[in-house]
Amino acid sequence: MLRVAVIGAGRIGKIHASAVASHPQADLVAVCDPIGTAAEDLAALHGAKAYKDADDLFADPDVDAVIIGSPTPLHAPQVLGATRAGKAVLVEKPVASDVESARALEAELETFEHPPVMVGFQRRYDPSIRRAKELADAGELGTIEQVTIVSRDSAPPPASYIAVSGGIFKDMTIHDFDEARFFIGDIVEVSAFGQNVLPELAETGDFDAAVVVLRGKNGAVASITNNRRCVTGYDQRLEVHGSTGSAIMDNWRPTTLSVNTKDASGTQQPYLDFFLERYADAYRNELTAFIDAINNGTEVTPTVADGVAALVVAQAAGESAHSGRTVRLDG
Amino acid sequence: MLRVAVIGAGRIGKIHASAVASHPQADLVAVCDPIGTAAEDLAALHGAKAYKDADDLFADPDVDAVIIGSPTPLHAPQVLGATRAGKAVLVEKPVASDVESARALEAELETFEHPPVMVGFQRRYDPSIRRAKELADAGELGTIEQVTIVSRDSAPPPASYIAVSGGIFKDMTIHDFDEARFFIGDIVEVSAFGQNVLPELAETGDFDAAVVVLRGKNGAVASITNNRRCVTGYDQRLEVHGSTGSAIMDNWRPTTLSVNTKDASGTQQPYLDFFLERYADAYRNELTAFIDAINNGTEVTPTVADGVAALVVAQAAGESAHSGRTVRLDG
Amino acid sequence: MLRVAVIGAGRIGKIHASAVASHPQADLVAVCDPIGTAAEDLAALHGAKAYKDADDLFADPDVDAVIIGSPTPLHAPQVLGATRAGKAVLVEKPVASDVESARALEAELETFEHPPVMVGFQRRYDPSIRRAKELADAGELGTIEQVTIVSRDSAPPPASYIAVSGGIFKDMTIHDFDEARFFIGDIVEVSAFGQNVLPELAETGDFDAAVVVLRGKNGAVASITNNRRCVTGYDQRLEVHGSTGSAIMDNWRPTTLSVNTKDASGTQQPYLDFFLERYADAYRNELTAFIDAINNGTEVTPTVADGVAALVVAQAAGESAHSGRTVRLDG
Amino acid sequence: MLRVAVIGAGRIGKIHASAVASHPQADLVAVCDPIGTAAEDLAALHGAKAYKDADDLFADPDVDAVIIGSPTPLHAPQVLGATRAGKAVLVEKPVASDVESARALEAELETFEHPPVMVGFQRRYDPSIRRAKELADAGELGTIEQVTIVSRDSAPPPASYIAVSGGIFKDMTIHDFDEARFFIGDIVEVSAFGQNVLPELAETGDFDAAVVVLRGKNGAVASITNNRRCVTGYDQRLEVHGSTGSAIMDNWRPTTLSVNTKDASGTQQPYLDFFLERYADAYRNELTAFIDAINNGTEVTPTVADGVAALVVAQAAGESAHSGRTVRLDG
Repeated sequence: MLRVAVIGAGRIGKIHASAVASHPQADLVAVCDPIGTAAEDLAALHGAKAYKDADDLFADPDVDAVIIGSPTPLHAPQVLGATRAGKAVLVEKPVASDVESARALEAELETFEHPPVMVGFQRRYDPSIRRAKELADAGELGTIEQVTIVSRDSAPPPASYIAVSGGIFKDMTIHDFDEARFFIGDIVEVSAFGQNVLPELAETGDFDAAVVVLRGKNGAVASITNNRRCVTGYDQRLEVHGSTGSAIMDNWRPTTLSVNTKDASGTQQPYLDFFLERYADAYRNELTAFIDAINNGTEVTPTVADGVAALVVAQAAGESAHSGRTVRLDG
Repeated sequence: MLRVAVIGAGRIGKIHASAVASHPQADLVAVCDPIGTAAEDLAALHGAKAYKDADDLFADPDVDAVIIGSPTPLHAPQVLGATRAGKAVLVEKPVASDVESARALEAELETFEHPPVMVGFQRRYDPSIRRAKELADAGELGTIEQVTIVSRDSAPPPASYIAVSGGIFKDMTIHDFDEARFFIGDIVEVSAFGQNVLPELAETGDFDAAVVVLRGKNGAVASITNNRRCVTGYDQRLEVHGSTGSAIMDNWRPTTLSVNTKDASGTQQPYLDFFLERYADAYRNELTAFIDAINNGTEVTPTVADGVAALVVAQAAGESAHSGRTVRLDG
Repeated sequence: MLRVAVIGAGRIGKIHASAVASHPQADLVAVCDPIGTAAEDLAALHGAKAYKDADDLFADPDVDAVIIGSPTPLHAPQVLGATRAGKAVLVEKPVASDVESARALEAELETFEHPPVMVGFQRRYDPSIRRAKELADAGELGTIEQVTIVSRDSAPPPASYIAVSGGIFKDMTIHDFDEARFFIGDIVEVSAFGQNVLPELAETGDFDAAVVVLRGKNGAVASITNNRRCVTGYDQRLEVHGSTGSAIMDNWRPTTLSVNTKDASGTQQPYLDFFLERYADAYRNELTAFIDAINNGTEVTPTVADGVAALVVAQAAGESAHSGRTVRLDG
Repeated sequence: MLRVAVIGAGRIGKIHASAVASHPQADLVAVCDPIGTAAEDLAALHGAKAYKDADDLFADPDVDAVIIGSPTPLHAPQVLGATRAGKAVLVEKPVASDVESARALEAELETFEHPPVMVGFQRRYDPSIRRAKELADAGELGTIEQVTIVSRDSAPPPASYIAVSGGIFKDMTIHDFDEARFFIGDIVEVSAFGQNVLPELAETGDFDAAVVVLRGKNGAVASITNNRRCVTGYDQRLEVHGSTGSAIMDNWRPTTLSVNTKDASGTQQPYLDFFLERYADAYRNELTAFIDAINNGTEVTPTVADGVAALVVAQAAGESAHSGRTVRLDG
């Protein structure tokens, strides 16, 4: 059994703690969070140790791997602390608050031998997205030409969260940037339109909706539509169009029941409402892949380089949204 | 251009008149109806001649073919009158009010040379049903084992219509019996449950809903579910299940739009509401096949024998619904 | 934590053992199976005790509840043994091999005070079926008039299983009979057509496909279509049609991805292949309801009376399939 | 009956001629085309007069209305010729080859009294798109925030056509620009990415695929994805997302049949293949609206101003695709 610790006892930390606790090949052995009794509370739930200080956790010889779900500015130092202590790392996105810090982390990691470091773009492990990727890689769709990604949250986070989120492109769209890269590879052009549609977020100074267009080095174009609010639920869709075929991913509903009345037919329930429900399989599969990478030396994906690349695109999207120019990248 | 006359200026007669008038290979030359000014009114609409007496119509040398949409008891004599006059015939279902009359017609038609006689089971010409049949005939579904037919009218006819309809099995289910025969061939067993669900039809003495199960000579079983009322529209569905695959026909809606709100997702409009809209293509294709049979000697289908066979099943269903026994047929 | 034992370490026993082991409110404390090392093997997997003899298990004071997944003839004596020992029981369907034994069990259970006894018709706990039931009970569909149940296994069991299964109606259709009763209540008429479509099962003397029609005391009619084999997966569908609306349950697929090519559009993966995957949520919810009934005294459903009633219908279906007559029941 | 003439006996001219000929309120009285026997051939088919010279047609007192489907450079002079002769006009898109000519036409039309002039953006008359618009206008979707338009042709036109088409934005995307304006109103920002995915069109110097993003004056953003080739058929989809709901338009297939096999489920036929089939209802409804505008003085839509506005956006898209800058418009 792999002995796993989780840093950060907030929303995403709880998800990871729960996934580890119920995984047949992993034990949750420790939780770390500096605030109040957060670590103790979550640890108690799963019979794990509690740490306030990450350095103490890194010094614990009974920890094999660390999942980092702390605030973004702590990601890079904690990745380095954990790997220097010989622990494998799964770090949440974004890998850092800015491209420079992310690149510095990437460079630093190249200077010493360390266990696997994986970045938490869990969508790569969603069964539908993965199957689309398999079809694409198998050539079933021909040459990929156009990708359409839709990502609408069911409800916006509080304005206080937005304030420290790093902005919509680094906080929310970054998942879509990684998803786009998953299908069209390196990005060479970025054009973004930001929108403000939610009065309650108007004061944050951040966009709450956006449309971003990316061009891949290979000529394929991806468009991304984001919205911090979708009343029908968590709207997560994908279209991959190639020269000989296309694959389209629809939303999940809680049941397969549809209702027909005098006024309407085919009425289904709203989409699964939240990323936890929608991506429950993806988080489980991600953890399995992380364990496999540690135990069996299988390929780590997504890598820190993928995390850096997504951040580069996010930063470019911000520039484009403000300048009205397409930003060109090295690709 | 084929010169076509229509007998019966009621609902189904008007459908046929309109189909003929707009068909590129046919001219509507005459309409016949004994009641009031019905024939004149419909004829005037299309610039055709009007007849009150069918015999006068049969004597008209400028008529090549006759479509019979008169009350059921007149079908057999009019088929004979028209064919004896050398006119091709497309006769509405059922071919007669009872099996004996239908068989007598069939026998009589064998005693002389005559142009094509086709029976109006238009569903055989519906694009979806026809494609299911093509798949089945091509072996794409393997050996056909089970067929499910759903036929629910959007709204019941008036009680006065029910009174002279011959009963639900001869009036409504007869289309389903022909459809079942289209897929599983000759029927050897019939079991029927009648229902009374509509208070407004309680006095008619007829069932207003029914479930019928048929066994084909080849062992396949078809189930049919009928209802005189479906609030969401005209519910017309078909499933054909074979040993290696199945084909499922869904309802049509007027648009492909679906709506998503806080409470529901995927909400579409009600089904197409009426058999005219639902089977518009089928009626057009049926007429084309009729014209082809006349002009080019292509196969006539469905034949009078098909009309008789469907009526035999309908009569057996009535017996079964009342006796609680499975009725066995020669097949 | 409720201390639960499982009797029977076969396929269904393993499902229940696994469901118990991962349930937050239950511990799997014992497994019982008389054959070879079956109990030991399954017990070891979950760190539970192993018993060969059910009576020893019933004598174990550290067991609160028993899930019975043994061969059908053992169900009734084990239900009585367990309840007499003060243990709550969840017993698999059918409750007994024949109606007489089932009724005797029901009568015997009325002679003494005992903890909850629930029958394992897990479909009542499937989210889609449950939602259909909620809509029906809430009057959203009006008066229920017609119910259509489709149940096709992805692949047939071995002939050896069929030989001891009690026949398709008691073994397979019994789930559909309970589902029909769930929606239309007590059954007063049963008509069944059996089929033999699988050459490999021809020697078993049992039907391998069937269509059954049931009439409820309230006039509603349900039709059931069964097949021991459906190449596209486990075909589990339901339609509930009422006077003001209908609810239709579609199959689940493993992903929401559909593929479009030159030849076809909307192509999805086969249905979930097996009852374990399809009804995983149902088994989990069933267990939760069982625990609730024990801990909180909530209503037990389905009851032994429901188990008896389904068996009565199954027996009647067998009679009807052989006699060609509709069998009438007391309702 | 409205007496209608068609100018241009090419592909689109034939569509209009046929729509007029079968419309209950219109007669096709003349066809005009300068090339070879094109006019005569098409006129003969419908029993109409043939003209080589549009001026002769305009002088014909037996013509009430003219549908202009000639090459784009002729549109403006022919609109003026026809209206000056007192004839109503339905002119194909784009109204002119460039914004200046289009604006000149618009200005000129304001200098004299003339019958209705409608521009042929037929999608506004497609039942699905129209219903989406009705829902939006009725407030059922709340404030419109994001619109997604997909338009992929089943197969590219010949390179020779591309050469004179005016480029993808004026030739193909212009329909999408009008559709976007239909939902989000005046456009103030345009950003476009052009692509070259079809080797056979590489020499044309035109893009064969594109993604365009538009911002409306009201803040809503529309994205458009175009491709000159979609192997599964004519891919025409629309999504309208508002603050309280969304409407999604799917493609039509020729039947409602889906097929299930060992390898796949839900397999349908390819999408309707061609704009004639897909938009047959739209062309018919467009003609009806044109006739209504003439006969009853109902509102003309889309207007020449709409035609100009779409052309302005098309021109801006071309600029943006080449400059990599978002082009700002007056809105």
